[in-house]
Amino acid sequence: MNLFKTLAAVFAGISLLASCSDSKPSPEAASDNTQAVINNIMTRTSVRQFTSQTIGKDTLETIVKAGMAAPTAVNAQPWAFIVVTEREMLDSIANVHPWSNLKTAAAAIVVCGDMEKKLEGMAGDYWIQDCSAASENILLAAHAYGLGAVWCGVYPNPEILPGVKRVLGIPSTITPLSVITLGHPAQSSEPKDKWKPENVHYQRW
Amino acid sequence: MNLFKTLAAVFAGISLLASCSDSKPSPEAASDNTQAVINNIMTRTSVRQFTSQTIGKDTLETIVKAGMAAPTAVNAQPWAFIVVTEREMLDSIANVHPWSNLKTAAAAIVVCGDMEKKLEGMAGDYWIQDCSAASENILLAAHAYGLGAVWCGVYPNPEILPGVKRVLGIPSTITPLSVITLGHPAQSSEPKDKWKPENVHYQRW
Repeated sequence: MNLFKTLAAVFAGISLLASCSDSKPSPEAASDNTQAVINNIMTRTSVRQFTSQTIGKDTLETIVKAGMAAPTAVNAQPWAFIVVTEREMLDSIANVHPWSNLKTAAAAIVVCGDMEKKLEGMAGDYWIQDCSAASENILLAAHAYGLGAVWCGVYPNPEILPGVKRVLGIPSTITPLSVITLGHPAQSSEPKDKWKPENVHYQRW
Repeated sequence: MNLFKTLAAVFAGISLLASCSDSKPSPEAASDNTQAVINNIMTRTSVRQFTSQTIGKDTLETIVKAGMAAPTAVNAQPWAFIVVTEREMLDSIANVHPWSNLKTAAAAIVVCGDMEKKLEGMAGDYWIQDCSAASENILLAAHAYGLGAVWCGVYPNPEILPGVKRVLGIPSTITPLSVITLGHPAQSSEPKDKWKPENVHYQRW
């Protein structure tokens, strides 16, 4: 197997070099891993119904690590994460967040902005973008494990935000951006086809 | 090869079933594809120096499709994407966005919010989260192709926003959130280790 892989890599390398010898745009390295990542992004979809199966602790930790690997403006990392797996606490969040889909979920990861770590002035608003990137990483990591997930918005909804803060005991300097609801999917879901060429402009608007 | 893969899948299945026969948290399916996705998330880092190599058109289109596969609140898809590859236009953006790192870049994808497609009222602010998720997908897809990329913030910076809109001819109803700068990395970069266990809380704050 290793010899086979080595030979395949050598041939791929020769092929890549050959294709780079003219001035045309070069094909990028599209390995099996590339395809796995692209497929994972393209097939992820919101999952709202789950089986009763729990999620392993290591898996949850890896998913949180994936969230924390997101980029942040000026590397401020203005965030905190609350991992919830206890049934009673999941139900408490569901009571204050009606579309959190937590009633059958195995876990939730609450992605929060830390107002004491955010940037100064108007750049302070970048915490929303940073925590959104983290939320997306969490969705993608969960999907990679065959889990289902859905991003349930909290901030800036004034009907949801105070209740979520209260039931989780979140201090005043912390703002929950999203509840990422997680579990083993009760059924397979088709991803939405959101590709609209009219939404793409080239060189300028 | 196919027989080998089939047998491996069968054994993996038996192993998974066996491990699920007790009531402990089950290990999730951690295939090679799972690991490829997690590795891609964990090893992505901001790249700001590029070679002169161009990026293939198909690769760029796949990366934009990855952006457009991000979730959006109430599936509003309040976005538009501008793909820039012409040297003159990249330089024009660089002139109005000093830290866009575009001087040596092969391409930029400008992720924009469409104010006519965003939700009503306070939920309208979700366009920032939607476009941030799309920006993160673009970074991850680029990294999967071995490309380097960096997320350069535009909105809500008043010193950057008007200039970017002007040089790209962006209409008043469209707000650029980010310039994602892309190219073939000039050197390999170590990802930052941002894992901080103290940023994780369990069950409640």
